[in-house]
Amino acid sequence: MLVVSLSMALTPLLTLAYDRLIAPRLRMRDDRPYDRDVEQDTPIIIAGFGRFGQVVGRVLRARGIPFTAMDADPAQIDFLKRFGNKVFYGDASRLDLLRAARADKARLFVLAIDDVQASVRTAREVQEHFPHLMIFARARNRAHAYQLMELGIEHVSRETFLSSLELTGELLQELGFTYSDARSTLDRFREHDERMLQESFRYQRDEKKLIEIAERSRRELESLFARDAAEERRSA
Amino acid sequence: MLVVSLSMALTPLLTLAYDRLIAPRLRMRDDRPYDRDVEQDTPIIIAGFGRFGQVVGRVLRARGIPFTAMDADPAQIDFLKRFGNKVFYGDASRLDLLRAARADKARLFVLAIDDVQASVRTAREVQEHFPHLMIFARARNRAHAYQLMELGIEHVSRETFLSSLELTGELLQELGFTYSDARSTLDRFREHDERMLQESFRYQRDEKKLIEIAERSRRELESLFARDAAEERRSA
Repeated sequence: MLVVSLSMALTPLLTLAYDRLIAPRLRMRDDRPYDRDVEQDTPIIIAGFGRFGQVVGRVLRARGIPFTAMDADPAQIDFLKRFGNKVFYGDASRLDLLRAARADKARLFVLAIDDVQASVRTAREVQEHFPHLMIFARARNRAHAYQLMELGIEHVSRETFLSSLELTGELLQELGFTYSDARSTLDRFREHDERMLQESFRYQRDEKKLIEIAERSRRELESLFARDAAEERRSA
Repeated sequence: MLVVSLSMALTPLLTLAYDRLIAPRLRMRDDRPYDRDVEQDTPIIIAGFGRFGQVVGRVLRARGIPFTAMDADPAQIDFLKRFGNKVFYGDASRLDLLRAARADKARLFVLAIDDVQASVRTAREVQEHFPHLMIFARARNRAHAYQLMELGIEHVSRETFLSSLELTGELLQELGFTYSDARSTLDRFREHDERMLQESFRYQRDEKKLIEIAERSRRELESLFARDAAEERRSA
């Protein structure tokens, strides 16, 4: 959050400095051409091969399922290649590079780009030019999830949601919950949260309404668990 | 990744501009004092109340378990308070503010700070001054996980790992895997990956060795799944 607010404060100065001093050097450094020689058609394209996309790719590779991975960061590409990954240097938000990745022949598109704007731009491009592709998207946060849902994407996965839930489960067990009680707490919370995400999506630009929904959601969850606890006492 | 490499390129210029022009204005804007009036002792402190920490807090609240949440970003604090959260404005890497959060009375410490340096600094401070606290840590990536493991922290959760695994499971099912085959693929992958994380941890500063481990890990996984498939064919 600090980075964001800082860079906003710096914007006018930065733009100036960037244009005059930095951009020419960066352009020089990153001047290698995008790859256009993808070897084969594959059923799956993974756009963005960072922390998220790599896990997808490693599982697919272990199961012998071919895929085409692309990433727009040359430093990341060099790193990945040193570790034996086949990955194609390209910007998935560009139509010509989607074509080079043979998006017309693929069936599934994993949108694993971490930058929110690049992710949304890519989703739009894919939907416009390759409407047959089914998109599985990584979302940075709730706001990013809303943007992807707005495009009609059904498979949207908030990137830190499940790890934070699992850590909470370990915490609950450390507090004395049984495994199954912790598990059912997480399942119920998740189900409720995903329903609320759908509901709040409709009001994403209305902060007052979102606050109302958050408050109601909290009350609902509390009474849900209170009811469960009362039932357990009765049946004990 | 672009942001990181850009900000590194900008560093000398930025430092200058920041010190002379930006910092005085930012300091003025963020000049509110840290909170020191935490109301009660709680068994749990959540340091960092962003995407990750909030999920932990929401589950605890739903189950009626008291906790103390703190965050060092004033904009985030304002946002959270509008949404009805009780959260304490403080920097968890500072001893005086850990004391103000009554770290001496707590039992569990959720380290949910997204910034890697601040996270590691906080972990060290907590371990030095409140060694009785059990730490549950969020890690941004593998390198961050190594740093936390080096401090002896056992509960380390890579923040995007589980969401990317789950998305992969949906993908596998779309490709025709049954639910249970997808599930067992993910379970085996995860178990193997966590074992490899432990092993590679010992060689974290030796890229050559890490590359070897990655290569071996890939081969092991592939043959593991190939064996499974052969067994299934035999028993079919």
